[in-house]
Amino acid sequence: MEAAIPTAAQTVPPIERVNRIAVDAMGGDLGPAEVVAAAKLALSEFPDLSPVTLVGDEAIVRKHAAEAGIENHPKLSYFHASEVITMDDKPLVVLKKKKDASTIRAIELVKLGAARAVVSCANTGCLVGASIIKLRTLKGADRAALSAIIPRDGGHFVLIDAGANPEAKPEHLVHNAIMGSHFSRLEFGIEKPRVGLLTIGTEEGKGNALITQTHEALKRLGDLINYAGPVEGFQIFTNGGEHGQAIDVVVCDGFVGNICLKSWESLAKFFTTELKRNLMANPVRKLGALLAKGAFGELRERVKPERYGGAPLLGVKGVVVKAHGSANRQALKNAIFDASEMIKTDINQLIENDIARAQALIENAGEA
Amino acid sequence: MEAAIPTAAQTVPPIERVNRIAVDAMGGDLGPAEVVAAAKLALSEFPDLSPVTLVGDEAIVRKHAAEAGIENHPKLSYFHASEVITMDDKPLVVLKKKKDASTIRAIELVKLGAARAVVSCANTGCLVGASIIKLRTLKGADRAALSAIIPRDGGHFVLIDAGANPEAKPEHLVHNAIMGSHFSRLEFGIEKPRVGLLTIGTEEGKGNALITQTHEALKRLGDLINYAGPVEGFQIFTNGGEHGQAIDVVVCDGFVGNICLKSWESLAKFFTTELKRNLMANPVRKLGALLAKGAFGELRERVKPERYGGAPLLGVKGVVVKAHGSANRQALKNAIFDASEMIKTDINQLIENDIARAQALIENAGEA
Repeated sequence: MEAAIPTAAQTVPPIERVNRIAVDAMGGDLGPAEVVAAAKLALSEFPDLSPVTLVGDEAIVRKHAAEAGIENHPKLSYFHASEVITMDDKPLVVLKKKKDASTIRAIELVKLGAARAVVSCANTGCLVGASIIKLRTLKGADRAALSAIIPRDGGHFVLIDAGANPEAKPEHLVHNAIMGSHFSRLEFGIEKPRVGLLTIGTEEGKGNALITQTHEALKRLGDLINYAGPVEGFQIFTNGGEHGQAIDVVVCDGFVGNICLKSWESLAKFFTTELKRNLMANPVRKLGALLAKGAFGELRERVKPERYGGAPLLGVKGVVVKAHGSANRQALKNAIFDASEMIKTDINQLIENDIARAQALIENAGEA
Repeated sequence: MEAAIPTAAQTVPPIERVNRIAVDAMGGDLGPAEVVAAAKLALSEFPDLSPVTLVGDEAIVRKHAAEAGIENHPKLSYFHASEVITMDDKPLVVLKKKKDASTIRAIELVKLGAARAVVSCANTGCLVGASIIKLRTLKGADRAALSAIIPRDGGHFVLIDAGANPEAKPEHLVHNAIMGSHFSRLEFGIEKPRVGLLTIGTEEGKGNALITQTHEALKRLGDLINYAGPVEGFQIFTNGGEHGQAIDVVVCDGFVGNICLKSWESLAKFFTTELKRNLMANPVRKLGALLAKGAFGELRERVKPERYGGAPLLGVKGVVVKAHGSANRQALKNAIFDASEMIKTDINQLIENDIARAQALIENAGEA
């Protein structure tokens, strides 16, 4: 079946093999104009940015680029793709029926070495599924993990896995800890991010078999990661209390992570809806709300998911950054910058090195 | 070991075998006076309430009861217990070392048939652990499940299991669906509560093996429950959209449920802390906050966990209602009333009947 899919190699004129970012110009809620605007912002704000290839309906994309005044930007190129993945598309159907979707073409550019990163707003299932199938996993890893940046009191944490691998084994959670640490370091500049294993009781032996075994493995990693031990749900949104020992990387499987992520978004929305309803209940409150307007705006900014640039899919050969479906140009700009930084630091090589070291440490400890 | 524990039978004067509620008077954050106040409220507000036995340091409890003017209330009795479970106590240690803890004695009263229900603010691990070990599970069930009432847009839902059974099999989740339906019916008067299976993608076959198998089993239950199918995290805090098809019972295993419950509490707290900080940022906002004060108070009331009376531990022989550690008299009153209603409707018999019916339906479908 794989052989029957016309690959990008057949349809594209050769591009130089560079640290290029293939940006899926279609599929976001705000349309290609917003993606083009994001590319413009990224190219002007970050002089060292990797070159960008906009993947999508070339006529439309070029039109927006011309309007934005960047059509002939020296770091910008175009790659035509005639189809678009919608929010309702299913990964396996897309791979069979929408071979010329912009998202698929962007991934294929990475597979061919014509780009090293993909940035896309396409639906998570399709982007994750197609990336794993087409790019394959890193050496030593047999699963990928989606990471997400979540705001907490006084900062942020990285949630990993937010939904790529719903049936994790202990080694997958160990890899999540390693990958999440590298992403936290890259994104927030934290030298030794504190890693917590999300569970339901922090005593040894609590949780379930997956947690117990992962905990034992993580303890063996020495200074490979900064393992803070098991953490409970009530700890993760705090700033860590008086000692400031907040958790920077929250490790879990993709089933728990995805339910958490989506239920948090749902709860935040309920919270704001309810508050708004209460504020509109009478004229005095309405006046108060008007005076305090800035406070609500800041809160909304702080917790809204599209504010955070990208959610990288880690563990695949290539850089894949998932942007929120409703990401605006600022969020997309951040996602493009993230992808560029992940290329520059060669995060995948760092991850492969650490996975190999972890494997050796765990095996040695097992023999000792 | 069991034989070595002095049981309540050895220390208590015989009590009539009635539909009595053993209320653990110790162990709440607000102390025994608050529990006594809750008993007073419950006895006066609900004329049909089952009789109440206050379990704890008898001198202290009687003193508070006298001050509250209910010491000799005809429906009130006392059972002395010299020890108290703290928030840091571990279940197995308590069972060995704190045999005269009020929580343990209250559970033993149910085991002996001297009471039919326990209400306690004691730490969840100890209450759940001791209840399962001492009371054993219902016929047909080999696990218990903790249920929690969670506010959502336009109403509430029951989350089950909120943490009793972190390694669930499909039959346990089927039992959770049955038990949660009975509790939703009792608590909210919903005739046919809509049951959703919490997962990460609502297409058939998504999620993990536990979910796929549970989904197949639930589909076989016919009208035994009102199964709405798989639900994702983003759906559960909504009012169900334009058709008002909100989910009344959210079914999951105790690992996922406990992480969700605690992270939701943590997120709500972060949200309110952040909002407060924003509102205090300048004098204009402060004035606005003052005018809109009522709106914040209502929101706090709506989402604070201690507002909801009790979280019943379902699936054990006896009624066990866990109240929040910081429950005030209103919350505790509700928990006591819940226990009384669960005795009155004989919820455990209803659950046992349905578990047997479910078993037959699933087996028949397997043979067909």
